[in-house]
Amino acid sequence: MIFEPTVLAATMPDLTVFQFNIVDNIFSMTVATMGAAALFLFLSRSTVDRVYQPALLVSGIVVSIACYHYFMIRSSWDGAYELLEGNYVGTGAAFNDFYRYADWILTVPLLMVELVAVIRLEKSKARSLLTRLVIAAGLMIALGYPGEVISSPEGWGTRVMWGALSSIPFFYILYVLWVELTASLSSQPPAARKLIEVSRLVLLVTWAVYPIAYALGGTEAALTAKAGGAVDPSGIVALQVGYALADMTAKAGFGVLIYFIARAKSTGQDGASAAGSGAYAGA
Amino acid sequence: MIFEPTVLAATMPDLTVFQFNIVDNIFSMTVATMGAAALFLFLSRSTVDRVYQPALLVSGIVVSIACYHYFMIRSSWDGAYELLEGNYVGTGAAFNDFYRYADWILTVPLLMVELVAVIRLEKSKARSLLTRLVIAAGLMIALGYPGEVISSPEGWGTRVMWGALSSIPFFYILYVLWVELTASLSSQPPAARKLIEVSRLVLLVTWAVYPIAYALGGTEAALTAKAGGAVDPSGIVALQVGYALADMTAKAGFGVLIYFIARAKSTGQDGASAAGSGAYAGA
Repeated sequence: MIFEPTVLAATMPDLTVFQFNIVDNIFSMTVATMGAAALFLFLSRSTVDRVYQPALLVSGIVVSIACYHYFMIRSSWDGAYELLEGNYVGTGAAFNDFYRYADWILTVPLLMVELVAVIRLEKSKARSLLTRLVIAAGLMIALGYPGEVISSPEGWGTRVMWGALSSIPFFYILYVLWVELTASLSSQPPAARKLIEVSRLVLLVTWAVYPIAYALGGTEAALTAKAGGAVDPSGIVALQVGYALADMTAKAGFGVLIYFIARAKSTGQDGASAAGSGAYAGA
Repeated sequence: MIFEPTVLAATMPDLTVFQFNIVDNIFSMTVATMGAAALFLFLSRSTVDRVYQPALLVSGIVVSIACYHYFMIRSSWDGAYELLEGNYVGTGAAFNDFYRYADWILTVPLLMVELVAVIRLEKSKARSLLTRLVIAAGLMIALGYPGEVISSPEGWGTRVMWGALSSIPFFYILYVLWVELTASLSSQPPAARKLIEVSRLVLLVTWAVYPIAYALGGTEAALTAKAGGAVDPSGIVALQVGYALADMTAKAGFGVLIYFIARAKSTGQDGASAAGSGAYAGA
């Protein structure tokens, strides 16, 4: 590993070879997915109208940040464990939960920006909307973190409290985005309408995974395992796998969707978009 | 190596210096080949008509993903072995087979996309075709993996079963692509026709290497070696070398072929293709 693992988070429960590896491999696959999405988004900019190019640029930056963080998350995971007599046991260094929160602090506001940029709201409206969304995103992440790092079964109630507090801005963001996306539909070209409906749904489904993963990683059994108790640590595995899958979909998948919306809305009349629109139409 | 090796797969059979090194070196060469192909495909986009640029972009992303994975594959291989009294023996960490499967999960669907994008099928047809191909690719990879990680001679029958199940979508994909490529020939410009015939053949020949490598790595001798038995582990070496050679041809080689097809089909009339078309024609 590149950096010495840090002890910002919890002690590590023993894992089976399978449990350790499913997390390790999904982290590696997330690095690859984010990197591939970054290449796609950066290099596709010239195929959409100039007005939509910033949306693709920001989307590409989001997955680049996530690519870096998953590389570090994986490095921290590998540094937190060693193989001992057929099981993975803690090295004494704890897995650093903060990488993921650092990632979210940077990328969630940018995800809002890329979405607002591609639906092209009127300027003053976009500003007010983004201000509210970015504040809510900051609150959501800041309130979730104190619960995330709790690692004893006695802390269960406290974790539930932080999770519940974090859910308030979480639901506010989803509500606002749903309402705004729905309201924007009438002003969108027909080709983009269906895609925006899809993105509304993708947002709802992928974001729903985060509280579920948070809850699975915060059961009494999972917290007991985190505290070193000899119970089933599968909740901890579920949390890591759930976050990784949700991040892949909500960042890389969503970024590709932003591309398709931008493409559908491009007229090709500003001299920047592709003559052959629809080249990916079947993808 | 960057990451501690993981143990998703098998224990490692002892290898001679020659056996270890042939695999180690072919992995390194694959990293170089994939990276070189990525540079070529990304930087050649402006030399074809705009409508074909997405095909080159996707091809470039495929080899970039493969470049990352072969780097990790090699790192895992190096971490799984140490030199001891003139032989390479296992360090206790197993070679991680999952990197290659993670690579295939991401790249095989994209290979379908690049092919469909360059032959430019009609939109609704492209969508239906890609849907079927991507589902088949997912099944092919998911059914192959359980057999890949078997590491005892008693598991031979089970490995054969998974290999056979995986072969059904494998042959389906090859059949569909062969039929579609053949059907598309009449609508292609003469210059591209011959290249598409070549790509049809390259597809068939390179893809044929995968089941052969899978079979060579799954003989009773190979499985006994994987289980730590003192038999000839050359099947395991053949599997790694075979997969690497096939990946180089099916991804980097095929990507370059996609470039030549795009080039042959480019008219230069959209203002995006090279003034000096044919600049690479003799290459």
